Amino acid sequence: MYRSRPKGDLEPESLNFMSSVKVDNKIAAYDILGTQAHAIMLHEKGLIDLEALKLILYELRMLLQNPKVVEILGYEDIHEALEAHLIKKLGIEIGGRIQTGRSRNDQVILDIRMMARDELNIICSKLITLVEGILVKAEENLDAVLPLYTHLQQAQIGNLSHYFLSYSDQLFRDLERLSIAYKGINKSPLGSGPVGGSGLPLDRNRTAQLLGFEGLIINSIDATSSRDSLLEVMSALSITMITLSRMAQDFILWSTQEFGYLEIADNLASTSSAMPQKKNPDPLELIRSKTAIIMGNLLTSLTILGSLPSGYNRDLQDLKLVFFSTLSIISSTLSISDAIVRTLVINKCHMKQVVHDSYANSIDIAEQLVVRKGLAFRTAHRFVGSLVKIAVDKKLSELSRVSEIDIERMTAAISDDLKVKDVVKILAEMTPDKLLLLRSSTGSPNPLQQKAMIKSSRIQLQRNMKKLLERREHLKNADDNLRNVTSSYLKKMQKK
Amino acid sequence: MYRSRPKGDLEPESLNFMSSVKVDNKIAAYDILGTQAHAIMLHEKGLIDLEALKLILYELRMLLQNPKVVEILGYEDIHEALEAHLIKKLGIEIGGRIQTGRSRNDQVILDIRMMARDELNIICSKLITLVEGILVKAEENLDAVLPLYTHLQQAQIGNLSHYFLSYSDQLFRDLERLSIAYKGINKSPLGSGPVGGSGLPLDRNRTAQLLGFEGLIINSIDATSSRDSLLEVMSALSITMITLSRMAQDFILWSTQEFGYLEIADNLASTSSAMPQKKNPDPLELIRSKTAIIMGNLLTSLTILGSLPSGYNRDLQDLKLVFFSTLSIISSTLSISDAIVRTLVINKCHMKQVVHDSYANSIDIAEQLVVRKGLAFRTAHRFVGSLVKIAVDKKLSELSRVSEIDIERMTAAISDDLKVKDVVKILAEMTPDKLLLLRSSTGSPNPLQQKAMIKSSRIQLQRNMKKLLERREHLKNADDNLRNVTSSYLKKMQKK
Amino acid sequence: MYRSRPKGDLEPESLNFMSSVKVDNKIAAYDILGTQAHAIMLHEKGLIDLEALKLILYELRMLLQNPKVVEILGYEDIHEALEAHLIKKLGIEIGGRIQTGRSRNDQVILDIRMMARDELNIICSKLITLVEGILVKAEENLDAVLPLYTHLQQAQIGNLSHYFLSYSDQLFRDLERLSIAYKGINKSPLGSGPVGGSGLPLDRNRTAQLLGFEGLIINSIDATSSRDSLLEVMSALSITMITLSRMAQDFILWSTQEFGYLEIADNLASTSSAMPQKKNPDPLELIRSKTAIIMGNLLTSLTILGSLPSGYNRDLQDLKLVFFSTLSIISSTLSISDAIVRTLVINKCHMKQVVHDSYANSIDIAEQLVVRKGLAFRTAHRFVGSLVKIAVDKKLSELSRVSEIDIERMTAAISDDLKVKDVVKILAEMTPDKLLLLRSSTGSPNPLQQKAMIKSSRIQLQRNMKKLLERREHLKNADDNLRNVTSSYLKKMQKK
Amino acid sequence: MYRSRPKGDLEPESLNFMSSVKVDNKIAAYDILGTQAHAIMLHEKGLIDLEALKLILYELRMLLQNPKVVEILGYEDIHEALEAHLIKKLGIEIGGRIQTGRSRNDQVILDIRMMARDELNIICSKLITLVEGILVKAEENLDAVLPLYTHLQQAQIGNLSHYFLSYSDQLFRDLERLSIAYKGINKSPLGSGPVGGSGLPLDRNRTAQLLGFEGLIINSIDATSSRDSLLEVMSALSITMITLSRMAQDFILWSTQEFGYLEIADNLASTSSAMPQKKNPDPLELIRSKTAIIMGNLLTSLTILGSLPSGYNRDLQDLKLVFFSTLSIISSTLSISDAIVRTLVINKCHMKQVVHDSYANSIDIAEQLVVRKGLAFRTAHRFVGSLVKIAVDKKLSELSRVSEIDIERMTAAISDDLKVKDVVKILAEMTPDKLLLLRSSTGSPNPLQQKAMIKSSRIQLQRNMKKLLERREHLKNADDNLRNVTSSYLKKMQKK
Repeated sequence: MYRSRPKGDLEPESLNFMSSVKVDNKIAAYDILGTQAHAIMLHEKGLIDLEALKLILYELRMLLQNPKVVEILGYEDIHEALEAHLIKKLGIEIGGRIQTGRSRNDQVILDIRMMARDELNIICSKLITLVEGILVKAEENLDAVLPLYTHLQQAQIGNLSHYFLSYSDQLFRDLERLSIAYKGINKSPLGSGPVGGSGLPLDRNRTAQLLGFEGLIINSIDATSSRDSLLEVMSALSITMITLSRMAQDFILWSTQEFGYLEIADNLASTSSAMPQKKNPDPLELIRSKTAIIMGNLLTSLTILGSLPSGYNRDLQDLKLVFFSTLSIISSTLSISDAIVRTLVINKCHMKQVVHDSYANSIDIAEQLVVRKGLAFRTAHRFVGSLVKIAVDKKLSELSRVSEIDIERMTAAISDDLKVKDVVKILAEMTPDKLLLLRSSTGSPNPLQQKAMIKSSRIQLQRNMKKLLERREHLKNADDNLRNVTSSYLKKMQKK
Repeated sequence: MYRSRPKGDLEPESLNFMSSVKVDNKIAAYDILGTQAHAIMLHEKGLIDLEALKLILYELRMLLQNPKVVEILGYEDIHEALEAHLIKKLGIEIGGRIQTGRSRNDQVILDIRMMARDELNIICSKLITLVEGILVKAEENLDAVLPLYTHLQQAQIGNLSHYFLSYSDQLFRDLERLSIAYKGINKSPLGSGPVGGSGLPLDRNRTAQLLGFEGLIINSIDATSSRDSLLEVMSALSITMITLSRMAQDFILWSTQEFGYLEIADNLASTSSAMPQKKNPDPLELIRSKTAIIMGNLLTSLTILGSLPSGYNRDLQDLKLVFFSTLSIISSTLSISDAIVRTLVINKCHMKQVVHDSYANSIDIAEQLVVRKGLAFRTAHRFVGSLVKIAVDKKLSELSRVSEIDIERMTAAISDDLKVKDVVKILAEMTPDKLLLLRSSTGSPNPLQQKAMIKSSRIQLQRNMKKLLERREHLKNADDNLRNVTSSYLKKMQKK
Repeated sequence: MYRSRPKGDLEPESLNFMSSVKVDNKIAAYDILGTQAHAIMLHEKGLIDLEALKLILYELRMLLQNPKVVEILGYEDIHEALEAHLIKKLGIEIGGRIQTGRSRNDQVILDIRMMARDELNIICSKLITLVEGILVKAEENLDAVLPLYTHLQQAQIGNLSHYFLSYSDQLFRDLERLSIAYKGINKSPLGSGPVGGSGLPLDRNRTAQLLGFEGLIINSIDATSSRDSLLEVMSALSITMITLSRMAQDFILWSTQEFGYLEIADNLASTSSAMPQKKNPDPLELIRSKTAIIMGNLLTSLTILGSLPSGYNRDLQDLKLVFFSTLSIISSTLSISDAIVRTLVINKCHMKQVVHDSYANSIDIAEQLVVRKGLAFRTAHRFVGSLVKIAVDKKLSELSRVSEIDIERMTAAISDDLKVKDVVKILAEMTPDKLLLLRSSTGSPNPLQQKAMIKSSRIQLQRNMKKLLERREHLKNADDNLRNVTSSYLKKMQKK
Repeated sequence: MYRSRPKGDLEPESLNFMSSVKVDNKIAAYDILGTQAHAIMLHEKGLIDLEALKLILYELRMLLQNPKVVEILGYEDIHEALEAHLIKKLGIEIGGRIQTGRSRNDQVILDIRMMARDELNIICSKLITLVEGILVKAEENLDAVLPLYTHLQQAQIGNLSHYFLSYSDQLFRDLERLSIAYKGINKSPLGSGPVGGSGLPLDRNRTAQLLGFEGLIINSIDATSSRDSLLEVMSALSITMITLSRMAQDFILWSTQEFGYLEIADNLASTSSAMPQKKNPDPLELIRSKTAIIMGNLLTSLTILGSLPSGYNRDLQDLKLVFFSTLSIISSTLSISDAIVRTLVINKCHMKQVVHDSYANSIDIAEQLVVRKGLAFRTAHRFVGSLVKIAVDKKLSELSRVSEIDIERMTAAISDDLKVKDVVKILAEMTPDKLLLLRSSTGSPNPLQQKAMIKSSRIQLQRNMKKLLERREHLKNADDNLRNVTSSYLKKMQKK
């Protein structure tokens, strides 16, 4: 760094404390691309001549093939290192022009936004893949009955297909949030100077277009100092992680010996160095803890920003750090989640057995008493409650085993109209498979509904894929264009 | 609560620990409206007869005028209390039908969503008012020059209008996020039962329509168990608070004796019980700390959800609590922010003096050397840096006071072409007012640009107002419709 | 407030936003006591005369009986309200002397510290009660075998007594942390003025002694501006909550139908409005979510302080708010935890059955192969692993059911020395009860060890009780003394 | 890992997601030491023979010199990698004995505790150095008057020495908390097995003694599953970071052009790539943001634990990660803080000027009116307030410039006894230097007091150094002893 004002060099310890070069490798390539676009615009606006442009573009093209060539040791960040590299190669008269009308403050947030676009596209792609896997599982498990839980107590009878669809629905909303966050990210801050713009005739729309952005963050203070679009991404990703973590939590419980509904594949499970019988669902546990890390990162970012004055402050460097960490963690978590879902070993028989040996059909029985016998729901609820008490006391595994005598005693207490035989009939009929077919309200676990839900989810998935494809195309086109523009300038040199 | 399974009543201490009735007053009215819609639908689907419907609707209409009539002591929540009230008034045969096909699990999230819609509309309305106030300030301060800061050091010369516009731009994005979050909220979960839907022929679209929702949360597990839409609201509000907090932080600094750029109005300031000379900007400090509370609330919510199994768990009650707290805090913070902005006392003269006595025009000088004399930016940067050093050493208040002899010494070191008189000319010309007019890059502090920005911001504000108005209209229409449908059913009774 | 500098009164909205009077009811009594001590010291140092002292002490004694008499509406805080009350009653010539050498900045942190002492003593007392309850359970369940879990998979066989003791041990450390935090709290800030002390001859040690403090926070900036002692309390309480939450999490799992190890008492459980068969462990879930609130409060406090400049800033008011919230939540959580533990219904038979039908004795079998047959542990681990595989494939409920033929096949692969009959013998002997008696390493689940642990825990509990009693005595003595000093001054008046 | 139960190997992606080997390099050396101690104990208890012990100790001693020799690729953690290494070198018959009576669950927390002891000692040492530096500054600045701030408004006149001492006092409490946390850390979990201890005759006290621990975490569930001692460390370090961050925040403000009280040394400051005049206090800003990271880490840890069931769960691996991160960040932050403090450039003249041109002596004037003229403080406060109003209106830089006529008008409104000349005299006398000498209350900024405070702080510092030295001695002695015991066993081999 050209240290105009402070005397002497930075203490090594201080430099080490301050430097972000170690994490800047994630944005090095974007810094080079941004520099290409900036140089081209400078030339087009008459701020550097063709010769300088060509030399700069040539060096940058070399670097793009191997960004590691840039010497980063001794620099505070990649931007400084890149300029130093160009000056070393081209001399200050040429290389010293690259920061014309540009500051590290608009440059770093440019790089972050470019990087975030690509990462968000990868993340969305992985999310789509995961949803696909979940839909496959939903289809495979249309016939898998299991208890649904509230308060972790058996609540109602459901089916596993419906359960999986509840997660694909959540993930669709996560996808939607990320698509919106993408739009917020996809605006160019370049040309905002350190905080108050530039007195040079920069063309901000040109660099934005060369780099594939759709629009500008106009106000230069806003562009260099705000990070709300990053917070929006981190919030959306935190919510996504919670979706994944809650599914993982279910699977952890369901893969206990006690629940026994499923197992993760052997080649994803861990074992014990001490206990030979163990098969541990470690990746599921780590999804849970990674969620806590993502939350910690979000909090760190909010805290950094919460009382930061306007304008760039160095604190933002650490926000960059945790932002990168979050993108990286979510990406690997999505991959492992997908691997887990696709290879889940599901124990349908055991689920079915559990459902049969439960009182989870109580509400269905009560509802049938409402429908068929006209009981007030509260009355029906109380009546079934009394049957449950008997069943518990007598340790009966299902309500249909309550004796007619006991039923008679209970019906008498409720209503003259309620006949024992009617109750017996309802009890007998409320088997898992049958009662699910009665679940007619929209969104209920009823295999017929699930089939329709899967179908419409597939359509929704297609829509999401298409949207993602378009975003990628747009970026690719911009990349191609930048390469072509660069080449055409470089050819001009060769003609000379 | 009809305690079918557990014997005996709840311990008072336990009830007290568990009950949410104290905060449920915020949703009592919505619970009544939701119950009206549910009852109408039940009747329309043949699940309760006209007589029962009329009695229930009549009671609910009474209650709506004074929800506090509902006895809440001794109940776990408002839903239980409301049913108990109806049973007390109408008997179990009528009142006991109101929970037909409904559970507290779909009911509570219905209420929260209805409440959140109204609160979000109020918040958006306050945000719009605040933006309006900021635009007024931007207009009033087109001529107010001040230093812009990075690292809290004077960086570039700017104008206050541009500063204010950086905040209206941020708040527009906050508004946008809240509008999107509103859409996520505005979907009906009603009819999802406890977790697995219902075996009764409920018409979920009908209740959704009666309550003004645009669509359903379809999957019943998702509808009762997910809270991502609330997290989305809380994230968006956290980001909004950070916008407000950063502005507050600037104002706190600027109202120190040392900066002296502005003061908050006397009737918003606090004083000291001990030090007679004090005028403290307490509301600004509290905006900062309220932001920390909002962040704590967000964290609490994320933590509650992070490892929660599917299905309703009682933990969600505490998420409700902090969600309400967040809505309430943001609302009062927006009001106070608006009051502060509109009455800010701005000390333009002092700002101007500070700008004059600073080196904050250094970059403009360097840029002019690039434009006029063709220097490489890095060379110009070094050269101006050397002038700064001289000025610092000689304690000169501005760079234009550097002597020609010193300038000559420095130009000689840089380039033969750089003439002293050219430098002197540039130094003399780079006065705050003139240099701002040279800031031509989009989004720079240049009064001409600010005028255009204000104009386009006003248009954007209109668009936001219109959108909000439409949302409110939609809710109002649904309200009117529900009242009409209710009245028409009640009239049927009177005819009898 | 006497608003010397800002003109006019506070806007009501601003006052409402800023005022802390609503939460200050928690410290009103302490504010009065502190004012008594301060007045006495002022008199003793010749800063107010006897007459004024007597009038002030008289009013304060009245107020102490009913602090609600103080009009708080229209004031920013209790300190302002109290002074206004005294001035209203006694005129400015007397009442206007009470803030001599005192500021709200040293006053508020005095009150908080006094309040925190009492609350911490209550919390410690409740913790002691809870530990007592846990020790009772540990004693009752010396014979209750159950699987211990890692990764929520059955790991080793243990006993419930040992499990309970793991929690009393954790709670002892929590108690220890709170005792240390108490010492940090128990220092007086009074006499530090607004930030820079006072030019009056205050006797800080005298007020500290009158209020039962052990020492001063000496430096006046530190005394008025630091809150690390509150953070220490909040951290310690967060850790305590985590202890309680993890126990709650275990109990939630263990009270599922699938685990079935225990139930919370009926009168602590909640039920369902929809599903008659439900018995939900709601208080346990709320312990989990309250923990998240406590964590949110801690975060809010850390965030408030993290970038706060030195000296009192109004942000600290919100730290006070969440500090009070934390103290209140922990207190009710401890009560409910104690109620839950003492009334837990434990299903020893079922636990025993589960243990019998498990492979959780695998490690004990491996260890016996090490001890008796000299196998390397890794070899033994592999060998038992192979038995487990057979048992899983053949769906055998215990390892002792593996056939001799299969064992023979496996031993052959390991070692010539390993005889089938030896293996069979070990398998047969490794029953839950027997193997626990072999667990000889310190701290293992072995009923003999548990008996000793319970005994030593009881002694430790006594020590904690004694320590708490001493703290309470000390405070009570100070209270009595302050009352006596006050009375003796008031009697001087009566003599006149 | 010997995968007894799950079939096949781990998927590489899964292994990568799960493995902690990358961070385990921080504990590799401790894992080796712990293994030495464990092996010695196993031999002493007859569980492995001398020959095996010697071979194992020999390998471990080699490894200790270069822990990187252990192949970590393909392993889940360092523990697994170390065993694999020993088996590869010594065969399963010898190497396969090292996990006898040991699990990764007690092993990992042993390593963390050993590592934390050393890191805490380093951190405490750096804290002591920092306090030393602060005391030097306190001594150098006994004569530096400056305004003290509340609400960031000039409040009272103080001196910089007193300011520095407020931070050394805080840091002493931080040191105290870390010393206590050290005790919590310094207990051995080794010998607890996976969760339920071991059936082998392990001597836990022997390994604890060999590794320099003072006592055991007795209960085996507690030992393997609790992390409260780590949370205690992280809480204490968070509070320490807040101390550092608040000081940094003050320095950031004070090094603005507007405050101008100090500058950080040039070789610690950063500059701007765009603005030649900039000297930015970047390390101070990064101290602020690192504090946010530390808070995020604490939150992550609390969240991970909050709802974790008893027993080791893989989530704890990520807690290890953020624990290491926290230790590393605090360590570098302390170094940079020390470097900053020791080289601070303090502008005493400017501070003095600011103090002179302020109303910050208002409270002193009011107090003198109380002392000398017997005014009620509130009356004096009002009176001085009225002088301030005049001074503000007339733009007078100090209160002593208020004209006698104005004073007369004001005194008349207050009291007949208050003479203008008395007021004038007090106003004239209340110069910064004089009034500080009147600050007699304990802990006030009064150079005479500061001298005493510095003296007693130096004594306190000595006490802390001594305590730290003892801890280090204890660890060193244990290290030496372990080395000697090892050597003596290895010599037995050579004799053979």
